[in-house]
Amino acid sequence: MKLLSFVRDGKETWGAVVNDGVVDLGAALPQFPELTSYIAAGRHLHAAEDVQGRKPDLVLDKLTLLPVIPRPEKIICVARNYLGHHQEVLAAGKKVELAGVPPIFLRTWRSQVAHDQPMVKPRSSNAFDWEGELAVIISKEGRDIPEDKASEYVAGYACYNEASVRDWQFASPQITPGKNFDFTGGFGPWMVTPDEATPEDGLSIVTRLNGEVVQSSTTDRMIFNIAQIIAYASQIMTLVPGDVIATGTPDGVGWTRDPQLFMLDGDVCEVEIEGVGLLRNPIVER
Amino acid sequence: MKLLSFVRDGKETWGAVVNDGVVDLGAALPQFPELTSYIAAGRHLHAAEDVQGRKPDLVLDKLTLLPVIPRPEKIICVARNYLGHHQEVLAAGKKVELAGVPPIFLRTWRSQVAHDQPMVKPRSSNAFDWEGELAVIISKEGRDIPEDKASEYVAGYACYNEASVRDWQFASPQITPGKNFDFTGGFGPWMVTPDEATPEDGLSIVTRLNGEVVQSSTTDRMIFNIAQIIAYASQIMTLVPGDVIATGTPDGVGWTRDPQLFMLDGDVCEVEIEGVGLLRNPIVER
Repeated sequence: MKLLSFVRDGKETWGAVVNDGVVDLGAALPQFPELTSYIAAGRHLHAAEDVQGRKPDLVLDKLTLLPVIPRPEKIICVARNYLGHHQEVLAAGKKVELAGVPPIFLRTWRSQVAHDQPMVKPRSSNAFDWEGELAVIISKEGRDIPEDKASEYVAGYACYNEASVRDWQFASPQITPGKNFDFTGGFGPWMVTPDEATPEDGLSIVTRLNGEVVQSSTTDRMIFNIAQIIAYASQIMTLVPGDVIATGTPDGVGWTRDPQLFMLDGDVCEVEIEGVGLLRNPIVER
Repeated sequence: MKLLSFVRDGKETWGAVVNDGVVDLGAALPQFPELTSYIAAGRHLHAAEDVQGRKPDLVLDKLTLLPVIPRPEKIICVARNYLGHHQEVLAAGKKVELAGVPPIFLRTWRSQVAHDQPMVKPRSSNAFDWEGELAVIISKEGRDIPEDKASEYVAGYACYNEASVRDWQFASPQITPGKNFDFTGGFGPWMVTPDEATPEDGLSIVTRLNGEVVQSSTTDRMIFNIAQIIAYASQIMTLVPGDVIATGTPDGVGWTRDPQLFMLDGDVCEVEIEGVGLLRNPIVER
């Protein structure tokens, strides 16, 4: 099932995709005002039942979407989690080693944007770069989650463009600044529940800039797999429903190229993951 | 005025300190259920008026405090923002350069603990280290705040123990993990409004472990001052009321010593800042 968040009549709500239509489950199930509360109740596993007998009351293409989870408590990102990307970073001259643990950092929810909404290239930079990633949405609260139980904590998967302002990212050893500009991280259009996608089996993940493929890999090439990332992060902090884990980007980012290639006002960037979805964002300078 | 958050009859509320007593302003002013909403309305500048004529209805020493802001949207921390600390990090063998911008990273609110509550040393580490810091609480929403307007965005100041799990911090180039263990960051006991403290003038900041001074400096020795940090962070992200900025720690942390010194179960750590307050936390292993 595909679940998503959107605005209807100026109000935030959420729903399920049925063919080209959307069932407004926020309206149908008022006990769950947000997708996160629905997930927290474990109902996302039974979304097919909740949709049954309801007619799609909205047209998908006409919706103003929100980021799948509009305000996650935490967005945990993993740096250099594909070997190809690690190697291109080395080749571009960065002196970095592969760590024995997932190198994690945080984004804030204000850095997110929905599908079809502009990803904002800040005027203060000319190094706005894409990072196509698979996002994992957490289903329930947990600390010290064992790897072999991690899948129980996965509510679903979504496309993420963990876009990065490279000059700000590399201005100090901590990359957090370049990862947290308002409205830079595409997240959507929806999440799929785990019965629809198995990243461990190697889903194709492709990023396109203005229609041209710039990243192409498969999700089984992560250095730390999803279960390992969940286990690691939960040794540090309590994971809660709606938390998002951006699992890292494959090779093909713009700053490691010669010549470098960045996103500019008027460009369109897409992240497409097999069985998960296609996230598209226009780039706007602001 | 000193403002703080606490639990009363199992419910979160907030108030103002008057001598040894506390006025429950959350009860008196139900339009402001949290300290953050009071700050967002700009009322903290008029707290003296709101307290006038009300008798303290609670005894400070008997309160179960909460972190000053229990759930800040963002906790922005600055790494190596005192020259003495930068130098001791170099002397301990880390190859780091002074950046031309504040090296910022994020903590999540779950990593915070209130005054008098235990700071939790995780069992998975024997390198739990103190970092006495001045925290700034943001008063109103802003982006691209000019340095000369930054003081208008400061609601007040508080003591922060930005305690760090060093082995986890240094396991990868991103220090975020060691800074985000649940219940590790002391924050309290209260915030003072800016009329009570002027960090730019050099307030004494002292950290004590079991009564012994381990850090001693003044707040005018920051490399990037408060206005510069606010201006920088707000070029990246929208600051909002209740956001917290931990402005960095002076020299004297435990991991750079020879031999190293860390916090253990049963220890007590204090951060005292002149005119701001005294934050005390017992250490508990869990």
